[in-house]
Order: sequence, then C-alpha cells, then structure tokens
Amino acid sequence: MTALPSGAGVPPRKVVALSGGVGGARLAQGLHRVLPPGALTVIVNTGDDFNHWGLEISPDVDTVMYHLAGICDDDRGWGLERETFRTLAAVRALGGPAWFNLGDRDLGTHLVRTERLRRGDPLSAVTADLCAALGVTSRVLPMADGPCRTRIHVPGGDVLPFQEWFVGRRAEPRVERVSWDEDPPAAPGVLEAIGAADLVVIGPSNPYVSIDPVLHRPGVREALRGRPVVAVSPIVGGRAVKGPLAGMVASLAGREASASAIADHYGSLLRALFVAPGDEVVRPGLRAIPGDILLPTPSDRVAFARRLLAEAEAQG
Amino acid sequence: MTALPSGAGVPPRKVVALSGGVGGARLAQGLHRVLPPGALTVIVNTGDDFNHWGLEISPDVDTVMYHLAGICDDDRGWGLERETFRTLAAVRALGGPAWFNLGDRDLGTHLVRTERLRRGDPLSAVTADLCAALGVTSRVLPMADGPCRTRIHVPGGDVLPFQEWFVGRRAEPRVERVSWDEDPPAAPGVLEAIGAADLVVIGPSNPYVSIDPVLHRPGVREALRGRPVVAVSPIVGGRAVKGPLAGMVASLAGREASASAIADHYGSLLRALFVAPGDEVVRPGLRAIPGDILLPTPSDRVAFARRLLAEAEAQG
Repeated sequence: MTALPSGAGVPPRKVVALSGGVGGARLAQGLHRVLPPGALTVIVNTGDDFNHWGLEISPDVDTVMYHLAGICDDDRGWGLERETFRTLAAVRALGGPAWFNLGDRDLGTHLVRTERLRRGDPLSAVTADLCAALGVTSRVLPMADGPCRTRIHVPGGDVLPFQEWFVGRRAEPRVERVSWDEDPPAAPGVLEAIGAADLVVIGPSNPYVSIDPVLHRPGVREALRGRPVVAVSPIVGGRAVKGPLAGMVASLAGREASASAIADHYGSLLRALFVAPGDEVVRPGLRAIPGDILLPTPSDRVAFARRLLAEAEAQG
Repeated sequence: MTALPSGAGVPPRKVVALSGGVGGARLAQGLHRVLPPGALTVIVNTGDDFNHWGLEISPDVDTVMYHLAGICDDDRGWGLERETFRTLAAVRALGGPAWFNLGDRDLGTHLVRTERLRRGDPLSAVTADLCAALGVTSRVLPMADGPCRTRIHVPGGDVLPFQEWFVGRRAEPRVERVSWDEDPPAAPGVLEAIGAADLVVIGPSNPYVSIDPVLHRPGVREALRGRPVVAVSPIVGGRAVKGPLAGMVASLAGREASASAIADHYGSLLRALFVAPGDEVVRPGLRAIPGDILLPTPSDRVAFARRLLAEAEAQG
C-alpha cells in the first residue's frame, strides 16, 4: 500500500481534475461543491470539439461547465436541464442535418462562443467568461486553445471524426486506433495549475479519447510526474459506467474491461485508483481504493468527493 | 381614369409582387391564397439582410416565406407563430448581443441558410429549397444573390447599417439619405418573371428601403416599363400602416405622408394605386382606387387580393 501523498492530515488546497464529458464532469461537480471557491481547476478534453451548423461546439467543456453551474440534465447526462429542442426540430423540418442534438438554451453557448472565437479570442478566455456568466467559481480550462481533433480509425481503413463515430454512428464501428490531427500546446494555465496542485484527480472518463488527449499536451506528463495523481475507474462490473469504453479496451488493449486495464493504461502516473468493490487491482506502487464509484446524483458526487479528499488527506 | 391593363375580363395568370417585410408579405399572402399554385412570384428586398450571431439573416425573405407558409405570427407581424425565445434568453444571460429578436424555431431557418451559403449555394436556390420544405407553392425570389446592404445616413454624418438603425436604434434618428454598399445584378429569374407578368403589384411596403432596392437592380425598371404595374399605398390617414415610413417621407421628400407622396415617388411606373378612403390622389395617367387597404388578418388579405385581381380583370 502506498500512501496518498498530501498526507499528515492536511487537506489538499489546490486540486486539479482532468476530465472528459459526463463521468469526469460528475466527479468535478462533487469536488466543486466540496472545495472552497477557487480551489478546483478542471482541465478538459477538447478532442471531441467540432463544427456543426457553422457553430464551434466543445461538448466536454460545456458538460463540465454545466455540471459546475448546477444546470446540467442529470437524467440524460448531457445538455441542460429543462431543455427544449425547437430549433433542432425546425432544422430537421427544413431538411438540415439533425443527427446531433443541440438544445435551444445550449445553442446560446455555441453562438456566443463561435462569435468570440471568430473575433480571435482564445477558447480558454471565452470559457472563463462563459463560466463567470454562469456563476462558476471553480476554474474550467480547455486543455488547449488550438484544435486537436480526435480521429477514430475503424475496420476497412476509414478514419472518422470523433462525433461522427460517437454520435453519428453510435460508437458502433470497432476502434482500431485513435489519432489526432494536431498537437497544440497546452492552454495558458494548464501546466501552471498542475505544477501547483496538491492533488490531481483523473476523472472516470474514457482514457483513450477523453484523458489521453489531455496527457498528450506537451509538458503535461512531465508536470504530472512530480504531483500526487489519483484516478477514478470508469469501469464497474466489467462495463463502462457510460459510453463505449468497454469495447475500446477490448479492441485497443486486447483484454477485458476492468480497473486493472485502467491501472495499466495510466501506468506509473498513478499513486491510487478508486475502484468498484470487487474490481481488484494488484499493481506494485498503486493503492487500489474500493468503494462505491457510481455518481448518478449530485449528492452521490458530493459524498464521493468528500471520501476522495479524505483519503488524500489521510496517511495511507 | 386609366384602365388596369389585363383588361377585357381576363384574370391575370402570372402575377409578380414586389415586397419588403410585413406589409408586402401580408399582401403576398392574400395573392398566394387566391391565385392558383405557381401563378405568383414574390420578388423580395434583401437590403435589410445582415449577419448576426454569425448567421446570415434575410428578414424580408423570411417574413414573406413565413406568411406564404401560413406560419407567421399575425399579432407581432414578424417571426413565427407560437415562437419561443429560449436561445435568445441564453445568449443574453451569457452577455452576448441580444438586441435583435431571434426565435428558437426561426433560428433553424438561419442556421440552414447560413450553412448552405457558406458552401457556396446562392440565396435564391437556398430560398427555393426552404420554401419547398415549408410547402410554399408560390415562388419567392430574393431580389439579388449578392449583398446589397442598405445604409441609413442620419444627422451628424453617421451612416448606420439598416438593422442597427431600424431595430437597434428603434428607427429614431432622422433619415437624411439612403444608400447601398453594393449594386448586385437581379437574382436569376427576377427579370424573366417581371417580363412574363400579366400584372405586377408593388406591395404596401416602405418605398425608400424596401421597394427602391428592388427597383434599383439593373434591368428591373426597364422590365417594368412594359408591364401593368399597380401599387398598394402603405399610408393610411397620414401615417404608415407599420414602421417608420411617415417620418422618412417628411425628411426625404419634404412633405406629409400621403398616397400622393407614394404616387409621386413611383412616378410613371404606376398605372393604378390602391389608396385608403379619403386619401385622394390626382395625377395624370394614374388611377387611384380607394377602399380598405388594411390587411391585419388573413381573411382581410384574401378579400383585398380578390378585389385587387378583380380590378385588374375589369375594364377600367
């Protein structure tokens, strides 16, 4: 057993969470509600970002932002509570592309962001302003200001933009490889936030398409080496809590989905891994912490964040 | 008295209406409901077109299209019936520009149009497809495919884009002059439709900012010279039925708003002018036809269109 590192009963004052969409956003919401204002920085994947209807859409950034603002739809897991889809219905009726669900209220975010990006403002600055307008007191940082488009390689040689594979084709074609079109530097503040963190938490997001893009930003792995990093397994009972991860573990790692597969993927980066009860991990230097890791409701997320921070505070 | 020209009891088979926004759209709706499918072509002002939230908006084209489709909001006069404004509220909450009212359903039109224009499709083709999707059997032609931006010159030397003057500043600064940034050719089909028309009707729209841009397209005045052209006065009781026209007549023509001012503005182009009772016009060569010209409800519009076509059919 290895101790979580903040140790000696001192609660972590600066926490960084790495996040993709729903899973990471749910954990980030718990941390946001438990930590004091300004203590949490969430660094968010932008590999899923894409242009649709001429709008610049950052699905993971928005999912995190909406969760921290407390306005997400907890039943669907994406988008906004009490959302309507009247514009989408109009676009469909006019013969426009309607395969991606954009809500009416959500559209406001994309319209404001797209205008500002076209004027030359960086995504990180626009995100900060959107968060301020929504009253979010934690910091939400896109991993990069430049594009970093995830491409999904499927059998037959096709290479699909992420959203076309994930939403347009329901994540059904088997993933043979994941690649990125660009390799942008980390957004301003990313390396600094990691360097100043008392604790880094990798959320229960998809390692291949949500967390790897963050880890691949130049300097991020090096900055993480000196920090206490823990992760929350996105696997429960051999299946992904949400999304197509189990099939990706099978096709990309050639094994069954389990906490062990997650532990091996992150390797020596991790000091501890929160796992579902019974999903044992035996790996030298890694502390596996079993317990309930499902985060369906805001109160589950708060309770889990308290437990996570308490484990980090305690001597191992 | 001059006869309306189709004469000899033959109803006009091909009718062209020139239209701006609400007034012209209401008349066009009446003509659309009375004439057989395909008989009506509405040529619409695009001088008010502008970009907002990154979207290409054609207010007059949409107002006509929505009226012909029978889905306009008859109380407001613009936009769609049973419309909601959730995206607008979201944009406002995020600090974005919210001075122009865009409804959620209406946004679908702008999103589909903007995407297609960005792909290089001309506005006339996009408009035809939008009309087809809405089941509009009359033809709606934007006056031009290229931009033709109306500029409003106000005291102090300022020159405002039309919508900034009209909506943003509530049409309050006095108009000293109207100009256009570009001089595009008429859209495909415009000159042909006028050339084939048994009757051309200038709708009760603002002559300066709604009809003049159409008349200024190269070849349009020449095509109209050989055709029977009638107009419907946009003035009732010395005031504009809708919008800032009365003030513009005062500042641009230096006289009170009346059917005579409208008749003089169009000059020898007109063979007849439908005027409000008591708003007499005495002008050689022009037949003034008094009667109710208010078109608040669809049944008023249908009744007026029948009267207008009957007058055209009758010997004068």
